Amino acid sequence: MTADVSEESLELLKGVSTATITMQLLKRGIRACSMVGPKPFSGTEERLVGPAYTLRCAPMREDISTPAFLGAEDNAQKIAIEEIPAGHVLVIDGRGEGRSGVLGDILVARLKIRGVAGVVSDAGVRDAAGVIPVGLPIYCPGATAPPNITWLTPADRQVRIGCGGVLVDPGDIIVADGDGAVVIPRNLANDVARDGAEQERFERFVQLRVLQGQPTKGLYPPNEESLAAYRQWLEDGEPE
Amino acid sequence: MTADVSEESLELLKGVSTATITMQLLKRGIRACSMVGPKPFSGTEERLVGPAYTLRCAPMREDISTPAFLGAEDNAQKIAIEEIPAGHVLVIDGRGEGRSGVLGDILVARLKIRGVAGVVSDAGVRDAAGVIPVGLPIYCPGATAPPNITWLTPADRQVRIGCGGVLVDPGDIIVADGDGAVVIPRNLANDVARDGAEQERFERFVQLRVLQGQPTKGLYPPNEESLAAYRQWLEDGEPE
Amino acid sequence: MTADVSEESLELLKGVSTATITMQLLKRGIRACSMVGPKPFSGTEERLVGPAYTLRCAPMREDISTPAFLGAEDNAQKIAIEEIPAGHVLVIDGRGEGRSGVLGDILVARLKIRGVAGVVSDAGVRDAAGVIPVGLPIYCPGATAPPNITWLTPADRQVRIGCGGVLVDPGDIIVADGDGAVVIPRNLANDVARDGAEQERFERFVQLRVLQGQPTKGLYPPNEESLAAYRQWLEDGEPE
Amino acid sequence: MTADVSEESLELLKGVSTATITMQLLKRGIRACSMVGPKPFSGTEERLVGPAYTLRCAPMREDISTPAFLGAEDNAQKIAIEEIPAGHVLVIDGRGEGRSGVLGDILVARLKIRGVAGVVSDAGVRDAAGVIPVGLPIYCPGATAPPNITWLTPADRQVRIGCGGVLVDPGDIIVADGDGAVVIPRNLANDVARDGAEQERFERFVQLRVLQGQPTKGLYPPNEESLAAYRQWLEDGEPE
Amino acid sequence: MTADVSEESLELLKGVSTATITMQLLKRGIRACSMVGPKPFSGTEERLVGPAYTLRCAPMREDISTPAFLGAEDNAQKIAIEEIPAGHVLVIDGRGEGRSGVLGDILVARLKIRGVAGVVSDAGVRDAAGVIPVGLPIYCPGATAPPNITWLTPADRQVRIGCGGVLVDPGDIIVADGDGAVVIPRNLANDVARDGAEQERFERFVQLRVLQGQPTKGLYPPNEESLAAYRQWLEDGEPE
Amino acid sequence: MTADVSEESLELLKGVSTATITMQLLKRGIRACSMVGPKPFSGTEERLVGPAYTLRCAPMREDISTPAFLGAEDNAQKIAIEEIPAGHVLVIDGRGEGRSGVLGDILVARLKIRGVAGVVSDAGVRDAAGVIPVGLPIYCPGATAPPNITWLTPADRQVRIGCGGVLVDPGDIIVADGDGAVVIPRNLANDVARDGAEQERFERFVQLRVLQGQPTKGLYPPNEESLAAYRQWLEDGEPE
Repeated sequence: MTADVSEESLELLKGVSTATITMQLLKRGIRACSMVGPKPFSGTEERLVGPAYTLRCAPMREDISTPAFLGAEDNAQKIAIEEIPAGHVLVIDGRGEGRSGVLGDILVARLKIRGVAGVVSDAGVRDAAGVIPVGLPIYCPGATAPPNITWLTPADRQVRIGCGGVLVDPGDIIVADGDGAVVIPRNLANDVARDGAEQERFERFVQLRVLQGQPTKGLYPPNEESLAAYRQWLEDGEPE
Repeated sequence: MTADVSEESLELLKGVSTATITMQLLKRGIRACSMVGPKPFSGTEERLVGPAYTLRCAPMREDISTPAFLGAEDNAQKIAIEEIPAGHVLVIDGRGEGRSGVLGDILVARLKIRGVAGVVSDAGVRDAAGVIPVGLPIYCPGATAPPNITWLTPADRQVRIGCGGVLVDPGDIIVADGDGAVVIPRNLANDVARDGAEQERFERFVQLRVLQGQPTKGLYPPNEESLAAYRQWLEDGEPE
Repeated sequence: MTADVSEESLELLKGVSTATITMQLLKRGIRACSMVGPKPFSGTEERLVGPAYTLRCAPMREDISTPAFLGAEDNAQKIAIEEIPAGHVLVIDGRGEGRSGVLGDILVARLKIRGVAGVVSDAGVRDAAGVIPVGLPIYCPGATAPPNITWLTPADRQVRIGCGGVLVDPGDIIVADGDGAVVIPRNLANDVARDGAEQERFERFVQLRVLQGQPTKGLYPPNEESLAAYRQWLEDGEPE
Repeated sequence: MTADVSEESLELLKGVSTATITMQLLKRGIRACSMVGPKPFSGTEERLVGPAYTLRCAPMREDISTPAFLGAEDNAQKIAIEEIPAGHVLVIDGRGEGRSGVLGDILVARLKIRGVAGVVSDAGVRDAAGVIPVGLPIYCPGATAPPNITWLTPADRQVRIGCGGVLVDPGDIIVADGDGAVVIPRNLANDVARDGAEQERFERFVQLRVLQGQPTKGLYPPNEESLAAYRQWLEDGEPE
Repeated sequence: MTADVSEESLELLKGVSTATITMQLLKRGIRACSMVGPKPFSGTEERLVGPAYTLRCAPMREDISTPAFLGAEDNAQKIAIEEIPAGHVLVIDGRGEGRSGVLGDILVARLKIRGVAGVVSDAGVRDAAGVIPVGLPIYCPGATAPPNITWLTPADRQVRIGCGGVLVDPGDIIVADGDGAVVIPRNLANDVARDGAEQERFERFVQLRVLQGQPTKGLYPPNEESLAAYRQWLEDGEPE
Repeated sequence: MTADVSEESLELLKGVSTATITMQLLKRGIRACSMVGPKPFSGTEERLVGPAYTLRCAPMREDISTPAFLGAEDNAQKIAIEEIPAGHVLVIDGRGEGRSGVLGDILVARLKIRGVAGVVSDAGVRDAAGVIPVGLPIYCPGATAPPNITWLTPADRQVRIGCGGVLVDPGDIIVADGDGAVVIPRNLANDVARDGAEQERFERFVQLRVLQGQPTKGLYPPNEESLAAYRQWLEDGEPE
């Protein structure tokens, strides 16, 4: 899919929460990775993992952002919807414009049919009643009725964008879950996948101990004794 | 109900989404029709359609916005609740003040009993646990505990207001659904109802084709061939 | 639990809505008691009542807010989680920083095990998928992936704070429900509990009458006739 | 000018700062009196004192807020500009819409010619280069090019409004200076003028002492000794 | 300079205020032309007129937005500063990020030396004490210390951007004065220049009459009598 | 003054701009050092350099934030004003509350008399007409009439705070100029002073060359040739 992010890493990331990913990135000096705005649109989204395909919007201007523009074949959004590869995530720089819905039920259905992994947008999505049944994972600030051209203009695609206040390059890895959407810089994705999966495993152990009444002191972060207990738990096959 | 908006149009609008209405209004030069703030309060609201009855609030001031004011019979809100005709929508200019709840369970029950169609407000609603069981469609930014007089003062009724950033005149037609609330200027309502219903029909056809794998190019917007196919589909009785 | 708020008052407050409490406080000259931001985190929280234990955060600074700081034993948050008494509410001044999650599933589990009543925060909570099953009542603006140190630094505990724009002193009584979270100044709690419970009782009577079709005029607020009917209803055992 | 606010009080208020007025109102239980937004437009405004004449705006809607509307004689703003009495302050509820300029150089010149005291607006003012030379005191959030109808619609006049988040009734007394604009409820204006003038006198005494090196303890607020010294200073003719 | 906007139009626009331009554009159906944010940086800027050269920024990300990136020769901003033609206006889409200063004294000096007309940015400018003496007209929201890479990343140039919420295409005409900055779509610039200059002339006449005491009714907008008087005034050589 | 920041460093910092300081801190991994909000209050402030003395505010609550509280001797603000050492900067965490003025003319005069270096606040300052003549450097978001207790409550002093979104510890070094206020972590201050002074020197050289027409390429950042020219310029006595 992408040369430098392995399929194995993408598979691992399906089991790593965005909370864990942000901690892994913080350890690597990156705080600016979690978007403000995108949340699960239907409320029951499955987790979303995949490389970013980017679409950028400019503001609306009445002489440009017309119904004719919306229907034109060279509209960047129309091209994007047919061009984005299967398995990728459509990431839309909608300038945080929650008043406009950048996608409605028809285009969402087309993305679903084409095998796209999902959508992350910092502008709204429209026609919630028609979009939700399609079953495509969508993360955005919420539902809104007006089409994109009411307050936005699709401008170009596959360029460096911002979404939810975070820089996204085409090919960066997007992961989204109930905590929202995060971006993993492409060249860090293999490391974050590997260490994130290990962190998830360790925190399952910690959570079991906490629910048994053990204080977090010495456990989280672990002292030597806890590390030994963790290794034993791994050897024992990670019993619940 | 209103002289110039036909009952037939109001009936048609019950089947036209706010997404479709905003597109119809955009084609008529109107972008400023979709409110920012009002969302389904209970999460499962039925669609709301009806002429607007307006209530306007000023900010709170401690010498005026007292519990005595709240209980007074000449409080504009109390008058509004008894005066709004059945079938109308109470539209409240609450200055976007999400901290105050302009209605609670008792007044919502009274509106329900009086046959009011529903409520749209850009201020909050209070006592969610008591309001939701009443079953009146309510669109507002969310639940909040304090009464209106904590941060607002009902000022007058049936005047030109703003709600969610949109101008509303008494008698304008309000439609609200999962995408939020929109305003149709009264003198455009018949046209928007007719053309909106037709747009809904065409988009059902488009969605069927898209789910069958047809690209949107040439279909949405349609070329001659797609229009012919649409006409055939209509003749065939709009098969799923 | 606290010397001056009786157990009976805390028990009464479990049946008094935040809407009622804000009205009781308004009658006592207090408008600034309802937080902006905290909402039920899982959407199905039980009501939360208890004395406040406070935790204060400063902003993030890269030289201080490190993973090492997060794990240190003298981190104010770690101390707070072990020190807060059972039955108390952890109230976090997170500077309204919705980008940081001040608690995740492990610390929430620890609070649950320790018998803490719940959490109110004006910053986010992380790891929603892990936190919600723990079943601790949490009120905050929403889920977010990054840990607290990404944008915040726990600073001290059991001091006067602000949360959601409202002053909270340790020992003030917190009540939260579907309308959000409110603060009752400690020395007003007994009075508010007593008069709030009475207001709830009267409003149940009013709501019954309204649903039977009685207008609110003369009923809410009540005239002499309505007061007499209310007294009769009380004598009759408050029939539905 | 108004029946209940004496000319003497208006004269006194010309020497009372808005800082002093807000303290006097706070002592009378009123915090919500100081507007957010209005600041001296030219930077060198003289103080502004006078009774409020109010103008209210609704949002823009493209079918209503046209150039024809702007020029129509029954436009509420045009009526207001000819109707506001000399010596009054035009207070504009512009919904905090800083993008629209509610007045330009021609209308400001007309207000000046008519003897109006000044303007307070929470929307912008346009054509700064033409407005400033007119020399009318104007308090607003800043300069902006578009006319009012770009984002606003004048709706009605001499009704209860909000301006800068504060309730204003026609006839309330407006005072504005370098700290911004405040509203004195009409029935408190005589008391605030009298006590405010006295507070100004006392604070001149305090400031003299502070600049001589006296600590504020025992001086501000004063103990008995400081009160005696103040009385002596008054007897001595308030020497600098 | 540009093929379709005449030198004569650019010259005329030097005498047309942004207030007048927004009215001319409104008459042509365009409201979205006036930027929110850019204001005169030094407070004494001369008017700015010229074709737009655009620069677009993405948000900051720690792995990309480094001091090395800032110094690299292929940084879009560095290229822009050497590539923008004399007489053009550098328009920066800084995502409204007032915390970052996109230009400092050295780059502003370089633009000045190169004959650039000026700068319009919706992000901040840094090193005010060094920038102001250079004397280049700059319109932005204000001064701020951090360099662009602290919160932004220059991304590309000469593409369609947004600045201050307004769409700007390379070659559109920018005009800025004390009311802020506006965008004239390139293909409307000749018409707006011509009609704007005429509007300025008429409004000088109106202002003279208003200052002589004539009411605006019948004058602004003019009735037949006023139009005749205006024609006479033109014939008389536009006497003051 | 402080043990670890030398007097020489404080002296050097008087000649280092906040723009330069933010670049030095960025090179050391710190972006979160420049406050949002504080700007020169009088418009002509001299530069401000000194160690921070911190004061923290909670929100207002009507039962606590009374005129009596304002006058009480144990009010944290009153103590701070008498306790802050000469040469220090009073840094106020005012929660970004621009509506309240945390200081007025009398307290500012007292700080001046006591030899305090200046004030940085993210809440407002009141009584601009009386404060500006005192001549104390003040950086805050602007003037506002109401006293601190209208919307704030002084809570404690000399604790870790946030101001303008930035963490400040007592003893951190504050520098403020026309670009606003920045915080230098105490243990980095000597390094930042030394390297910042050198950066200022080099940029004077660069600016001279740019004004002579040299492109920034190879100069800023410098190649070997430019570095050699710089060394020569230093040897020549830094000629203008």
